[in-house]
Amino acid sequence: MPLTFNYTRRISFAETDMAGVMHFSNYFRLMEEAEHAMFRDMGMSVVQPRDDGGIVSWPRIRVECEYRGPIRFEEEVTLHLTITRIGSKSVSYTAEFERDGRTAAEGQVTMVCCLMRDGSFKSIDIPEDIRARFHK
Amino acid sequence: MPLTFNYTRRISFAETDMAGVMHFSNYFRLMEEAEHAMFRDMGMSVVQPRDDGGIVSWPRIRVECEYRGPIRFEEEVTLHLTITRIGSKSVSYTAEFERDGRTAAEGQVTMVCCLMRDGSFKSIDIPEDIRARFHK
Amino acid sequence: MPLTFNYTRRISFAETDMAGVMHFSNYFRLMEEAEHAMFRDMGMSVVQPRDDGGIVSWPRIRVECEYRGPIRFEEEVTLHLTITRIGSKSVSYTAEFERDGRTAAEGQVTMVCCLMRDGSFKSIDIPEDIRARFHK
Amino acid sequence: MPLTFNYTRRISFAETDMAGVMHFSNYFRLMEEAEHAMFRDMGMSVVQPRDDGGIVSWPRIRVECEYRGPIRFEEEVTLHLTITRIGSKSVSYTAEFERDGRTAAEGQVTMVCCLMRDGSFKSIDIPEDIRARFHK
Repeated sequence: MPLTFNYTRRISFAETDMAGVMHFSNYFRLMEEAEHAMFRDMGMSVVQPRDDGGIVSWPRIRVECEYRGPIRFEEEVTLHLTITRIGSKSVSYTAEFERDGRTAAEGQVTMVCCLMRDGSFKSIDIPEDIRARFHK
Repeated sequence: MPLTFNYTRRISFAETDMAGVMHFSNYFRLMEEAEHAMFRDMGMSVVQPRDDGGIVSWPRIRVECEYRGPIRFEEEVTLHLTITRIGSKSVSYTAEFERDGRTAAEGQVTMVCCLMRDGSFKSIDIPEDIRARFHK
Repeated sequence: MPLTFNYTRRISFAETDMAGVMHFSNYFRLMEEAEHAMFRDMGMSVVQPRDDGGIVSWPRIRVECEYRGPIRFEEEVTLHLTITRIGSKSVSYTAEFERDGRTAAEGQVTMVCCLMRDGSFKSIDIPEDIRARFHK
Repeated sequence: MPLTFNYTRRISFAETDMAGVMHFSNYFRLMEEAEHAMFRDMGMSVVQPRDDGGIVSWPRIRVECEYRGPIRFEEEVTLHLTITRIGSKSVSYTAEFERDGRTAAEGQVTMVCCLMRDGSFKSIDIPEDIRARFHK
């Protein structure tokens, strides 16, 4: 059964550009915000110091977004996240941007579980305690 | 024959995040910067007031990026843009991010030619004077 | 009697930099967000189309911020805004950034009421209907 | 004799907001970019690993900006930095934003020399090898 999560917030002035709409790059920041809220909702942080040293984090390896129509200042947007795949080292999800009952954009993210140590990243199998939270 | 364009610049501090690397959303800003430099190189601006009123601009309808490895503060990155398709209303290009002779990321953008008037966007056939600059 | 307004939100990953803390420029975006929430709380938007054409908005003419200590990813910050002066054309306020009961930063903003028309800005006396909302 | 440094670049689309001008927070990113270019011009990076462990960096403790007029997409801006004070632990500078021969904005920054270790910051006397570069 798919894991889903919803996240709503209002678009800020600094997120708009001279075309009068949310800048296309900010959709990715919004997806990341929603994802991190989902991690918190699962009872953990996306950035996680480990007992054995190092920090688990989740760099993106592939992202995409399709834009259907503009989103403007002060509009409220709800992101509907759906986890579509939990691999041994990576997790993928989709994000539907809903504004006024319509889909304004659709995004996809694949992120890989990494151990960060001394500034370098190494992909690792998702630790069991973290994986369990995705499956609860 | 493909139209190509190269753009080089250094990564700034504000573009990094707490993982010590360029934030993944900023790759899209860099692609846009390179694209706009390409428009200028073709002798025009990406934002173009028209004689008959309205402003031609190019909202993105689909973007994606694959990340191969981190890019860090003060590193110099060269974007290699290649236009892959010029349709009746849209243009697509790829962007290879090169850092120290290696591909650090690969992006794709599809943008659609729009007439912006009173804050709304309408897709239009690419005006001949603009199309000609892509083909020169 | 001073007009005050409180605004709380969590710091996002994209707002951090490679020093592991919120980038100093993002404090200004947070102040603006809080200010715009204050406008909405007063029953109006900071961007306001007028019956006689043009749009009232509030460009900043001077801002400052003093930083006392870092603010980090996922920390919750409360901004305490206090309007310190309502002039004929301008409004000034201070913003205290509170995190865990301590002042993490203090900002000041002066903004001027402008009529925006065809892309140019002209400072104007604050319209009475807007001024009234500051004084209620 | 004051230490000065000039830095020129073009304003990008993503730096604008729906008012059609560079967002006020981005002036601070531009100042920081110019400052870091100045550090490189002095033969060092603003972020500097030290032999004895830890990293020297320069968090801001106070910044301000006065805005005289808008700066728009694709305009070229030159920042004129002038170091106004070199203290035992801190450095202050001003930044004049020049566009088309006119001053568009004026900024001030005070930053403090810090040793960053395990994610915490401690202000330190500016190391002699760094101080020497400011005085050459």
